Amino acid sequence: MLDENRLFSADSASRSIAARLYEKVRDLPIISPHGHTDPRWFAEDTAFPDPAALLIQPDHYIFRMLYSQGVSLESLGVPQVDGGQKADPREVWRIFARHYYLFRGTPTRLWLDYAFANQFGLQERLGPENADQFYDAISAKLQTPEFRPRALFDSFKIQVLATTDSPLDSLEFHQKIKDSDWKGRVIPTFRPDPVVDADFIGFLDNIRKLGEITGENIGTYKGYLNALRSRRAFFKSMGATATDHGHPTALTADLDADTAASLYGRILSGRSVPEEQEIFRAQMLTEMAGMSVEDGLTMQLHPGSIRNHNQVVYDKFGRDKGADIPSPTDYVRGLRPLLNKYGNDSRLTLILFTLDETSYSRELAPLAGHYPALRLGPPWWFHDSPEGMMRFREQATETAGFYNTVGFNDDTRAFLSIPARHDVARRVDCAFLGRLVAEHRLEEAEAFEVIEDLTVNLVKKAYKL
Amino acid sequence: MLDENRLFSADSASRSIAARLYEKVRDLPIISPHGHTDPRWFAEDTAFPDPAALLIQPDHYIFRMLYSQGVSLESLGVPQVDGGQKADPREVWRIFARHYYLFRGTPTRLWLDYAFANQFGLQERLGPENADQFYDAISAKLQTPEFRPRALFDSFKIQVLATTDSPLDSLEFHQKIKDSDWKGRVIPTFRPDPVVDADFIGFLDNIRKLGEITGENIGTYKGYLNALRSRRAFFKSMGATATDHGHPTALTADLDADTAASLYGRILSGRSVPEEQEIFRAQMLTEMAGMSVEDGLTMQLHPGSIRNHNQVVYDKFGRDKGADIPSPTDYVRGLRPLLNKYGNDSRLTLILFTLDETSYSRELAPLAGHYPALRLGPPWWFHDSPEGMMRFREQATETAGFYNTVGFNDDTRAFLSIPARHDVARRVDCAFLGRLVAEHRLEEAEAFEVIEDLTVNLVKKAYKL
Amino acid sequence: MLDENRLFSADSASRSIAARLYEKVRDLPIISPHGHTDPRWFAEDTAFPDPAALLIQPDHYIFRMLYSQGVSLESLGVPQVDGGQKADPREVWRIFARHYYLFRGTPTRLWLDYAFANQFGLQERLGPENADQFYDAISAKLQTPEFRPRALFDSFKIQVLATTDSPLDSLEFHQKIKDSDWKGRVIPTFRPDPVVDADFIGFLDNIRKLGEITGENIGTYKGYLNALRSRRAFFKSMGATATDHGHPTALTADLDADTAASLYGRILSGRSVPEEQEIFRAQMLTEMAGMSVEDGLTMQLHPGSIRNHNQVVYDKFGRDKGADIPSPTDYVRGLRPLLNKYGNDSRLTLILFTLDETSYSRELAPLAGHYPALRLGPPWWFHDSPEGMMRFREQATETAGFYNTVGFNDDTRAFLSIPARHDVARRVDCAFLGRLVAEHRLEEAEAFEVIEDLTVNLVKKAYKL
Repeated sequence: MLDENRLFSADSASRSIAARLYEKVRDLPIISPHGHTDPRWFAEDTAFPDPAALLIQPDHYIFRMLYSQGVSLESLGVPQVDGGQKADPREVWRIFARHYYLFRGTPTRLWLDYAFANQFGLQERLGPENADQFYDAISAKLQTPEFRPRALFDSFKIQVLATTDSPLDSLEFHQKIKDSDWKGRVIPTFRPDPVVDADFIGFLDNIRKLGEITGENIGTYKGYLNALRSRRAFFKSMGATATDHGHPTALTADLDADTAASLYGRILSGRSVPEEQEIFRAQMLTEMAGMSVEDGLTMQLHPGSIRNHNQVVYDKFGRDKGADIPSPTDYVRGLRPLLNKYGNDSRLTLILFTLDETSYSRELAPLAGHYPALRLGPPWWFHDSPEGMMRFREQATETAGFYNTVGFNDDTRAFLSIPARHDVARRVDCAFLGRLVAEHRLEEAEAFEVIEDLTVNLVKKAYKL
Repeated sequence: MLDENRLFSADSASRSIAARLYEKVRDLPIISPHGHTDPRWFAEDTAFPDPAALLIQPDHYIFRMLYSQGVSLESLGVPQVDGGQKADPREVWRIFARHYYLFRGTPTRLWLDYAFANQFGLQERLGPENADQFYDAISAKLQTPEFRPRALFDSFKIQVLATTDSPLDSLEFHQKIKDSDWKGRVIPTFRPDPVVDADFIGFLDNIRKLGEITGENIGTYKGYLNALRSRRAFFKSMGATATDHGHPTALTADLDADTAASLYGRILSGRSVPEEQEIFRAQMLTEMAGMSVEDGLTMQLHPGSIRNHNQVVYDKFGRDKGADIPSPTDYVRGLRPLLNKYGNDSRLTLILFTLDETSYSRELAPLAGHYPALRLGPPWWFHDSPEGMMRFREQATETAGFYNTVGFNDDTRAFLSIPARHDVARRVDCAFLGRLVAEHRLEEAEAFEVIEDLTVNLVKKAYKL
Repeated sequence: MLDENRLFSADSASRSIAARLYEKVRDLPIISPHGHTDPRWFAEDTAFPDPAALLIQPDHYIFRMLYSQGVSLESLGVPQVDGGQKADPREVWRIFARHYYLFRGTPTRLWLDYAFANQFGLQERLGPENADQFYDAISAKLQTPEFRPRALFDSFKIQVLATTDSPLDSLEFHQKIKDSDWKGRVIPTFRPDPVVDADFIGFLDNIRKLGEITGENIGTYKGYLNALRSRRAFFKSMGATATDHGHPTALTADLDADTAASLYGRILSGRSVPEEQEIFRAQMLTEMAGMSVEDGLTMQLHPGSIRNHNQVVYDKFGRDKGADIPSPTDYVRGLRPLLNKYGNDSRLTLILFTLDETSYSRELAPLAGHYPALRLGPPWWFHDSPEGMMRFREQATETAGFYNTVGFNDDTRAFLSIPARHDVARRVDCAFLGRLVAEHRLEEAEAFEVIEDLTVNLVKKAYKL
């Protein structure tokens, strides 16, 4: 079912070049500098429970599509806010199999087919008639030692895997991994949203905890910044090489010290209005860039998602349930304050992501093709797909080149999809380069260099791995 | 002139798959769930007057292009607001033929060539030298029984054709069709813009008529809503399965009852300002969604056109003269009030259209890939074209899949273009699927299912036909 | 290194058609109706100094990319505001050669490879190992008579070359060219930004000079407009056929005479605020359109660039240093006042450019496909690239056709890149037409007409050359 030449151009000239390029990178190790796997898996190394819990219930790419066609989240056993979750895993799997045709033409389908075939040896196409057979085969494998998290990590040839963690996290599971005799490199990423976004649930409580953990006086702006510095240092000591920032917009600010301190006071009062919270987030991006100049942590910005668009789903099932919808993002005016302060400083690496593809050619490539501190992250989320990746290369490369990009991020909590996602990214890059070579816009010898750079070298450099 | 493989990929691998897929759907009946043909044609079944009146004067796709190159609308005999219209049809046709080269690369050219060849047997390319020959041949055909509206409808293999009608329309022509012995299914669509858009010409008069027709007290908001309910029921009794809403934006609102009633009072006073009118339209979309939950009519939203951009042309020639220009449309914030009220209700089917292609991947596919009530309409108007359709599939499919789309709409008042438009849509879908199969992203057996779903099954389901 | 079929589709069917089309236009003369070469070069006809001064230091496409990867502008000898500029040209060249790989996949690479091969006979790929060899070969050539500006102009087969000039410019170099025995046609373009944009450096001083030069009373709005009329007439007498307008937005206004005069008073007072300056620029676009109706100069609008985004670079190196970043541009509401006044007047030709590709299909093609006065300029700046040009054709043609476009602009100050840029444009148009023919959307005989129209006829007509 998995053709050797899948995702390469149908045109034979481009395809054969792509296939040659792919030969060079197909077996290179996976470097995963940004994602959402759970460090506990690798710390405890217990078996994954069942096919539904592994593949469906945590994956909003999957259940949002089923939901869009009238399948209730309850029937899929998606965890609820009140802890309720009742669904027989085998029945969940049957529902999924019955609706597998919905994923035709989607990257989810590519990832799952890859995992079924390469990890579970299931070569048929999933459907209602073989649902139980798939369920049983996967269940059986999950009980074997080869399917424990660490064994999978090793068999996937993952060289390094970054998780994404709250600044309040003790990183106990990362510590446990370090303390173990397992050699897998699982590193944390500092994601301060819970303590810089006043709209975050439990924000004030989070700030209080931040003070407790660090011993800093979070009653003052200076103390608060020191507390953040302290946590960054801790994360760095635990192996982190990067921070990550998920903001509604790309707005940054560069307030003078008094104004910033006074704004922090408003935020801390709990009486701030949305406009103040937005400026505070904006200010914090610039502060974080400044700290990155100091401590060398690479900075990632993921803006532009309107979170929890569906109130009904949010109230019952909480966040990350497939109801986050992108909206237009202004990078040019938004980033200016930060860039005027730190954009010319090569000690900073700020990686920009977008959910608004219109910004590739209009804003992001021109910005990254000028500012020394900027790099472009790979296509993100809805755009982590063959067409999305191709549009990114087609729209960003002519202005930003290849060397202002940073390779691939899988950005996933679906651990089993990691090899498939990296494989898709490598294939699409090969397809793009294959076309450039076939159209005599690049020499094949150069394409061989570029594909290796895109696969391993640029990501290592950008994330200091 | 019409190659068998037109619109399929030039690449032979993709092309041969596309051709096989097309074989399966080329002769399937036409289902036209949204358009602007005149029911009177089918009620009275009289001959179309002449080639200019049939093909040029009602088609803003054609005369806007001629106008853009300096051909006056007067010289084309485009009807004027004051009833004036003087132009010899043959001379109009000659002007058109002289400028036929302007349509190179446009879908209008594809549609016309198809109609010339398949309906009139004219295989040459139209130009100044054969203008009269075309005119005479078409004129002659139009006088034959085979070219009467009902005979064309049957020969086009139209299974159902929806018109678009004012809520004040008596639907007398629809009734006449029903009363006739002709079996063609022509159904109305409830388009309430004249009575919900306070910016619509004659709005207050329309409201008054609405009250008269329904016997409801339109002096109160409740009575007004009941009047709308009543007309919806009437349309439904006449065969309607859908409503349609042409708004400047996608803004929706969910006002509490008192605020809504009070706003209606302002609107009815005739002294409302544009901001109030916009909120009223927004509120009415949500009310209409609620009524759709009640009565099961599928709801269509066509937002984003700035109507009558050219004041000079509007003053002399009125609306729909090729001077409606799209502008950016925000679906994410705009639709939220409606979606939070009805978006999770599978009894509602809300089909979204756009003139802003940037929303395909950024907003529409993520929304339709989550909310059970949402579906994506096909590429609309300027984007009802080979490149436009291909971009839609490329940009929407990976997130929304195929099954959150609803097949094709011809959306036309150009009756003779209907077979050509559906043929183009089928061919482009075959071309897209052909590429997916050639790139091993979909199995050919699945593509055969998908192409049939796209051609007939999805449209029947979405529009309850 | 330069393949005969470069930039044509990899697919052999499309490619062979493209190649045939290209045969027809490859050797046609170059018509360059919009660019930024220095008329002094052709007036004085002295040798270009050295490879760095010719190819690197004036070309922001090149040094912005190097800068984005940490190469300092100082080390490249980019001229500084204070006149400082110290860098050994050979060393600059070596830095450039070392970083030549950064341009992989960019149009700059295509242009340079073309110039190296076709103008300097350097067939190898530039790199660190042959940097000196390239430097020496280019240096030697630059000292030969064949590499003087006029000789290059002739050898490039340039039929006409337009420069872009301040309304305060005496056009002395244009006069010197006219007075010489050289037959090359170098014409000025009237670009009034320095005297209509109150945000322009030295604006009030410029207005004063405008009064001095023309003898008009610039203290009144009427005198100011007359002064502009006078300069337009002078430019026209010097061969100009067009004006050019570089505005932050596409906003236009149509103020009544008193309001306009009063606004001019505010502007002239030096105390105007940004909002007033924006409305004044908007008003001046409409005034300029009116003057174009009078004097027949074709009008060009280049909106949407946020200039000098990087304050640090601007302070040290001044404008045009690769730090101008596009942002979204609204044409539909912005242009309405101007279009309602002059859009239906065929005496006006207003050519629209954009840096916001989303406007191609959404706004620009619908506008140009309706208004007689509008035409679409070719892809501009960051989009003057193979992918950018292809997107333009794919997104604009179906609505605007080919005949509402105006051929190619090289828009460059990099004189040696002119043949390469026109060659890329011709090739991409051939590739696009080749696909249309291969997909049977256009007949090959028609494509031969279109490619010649795109290459020479449309540009001559639009710019009255």
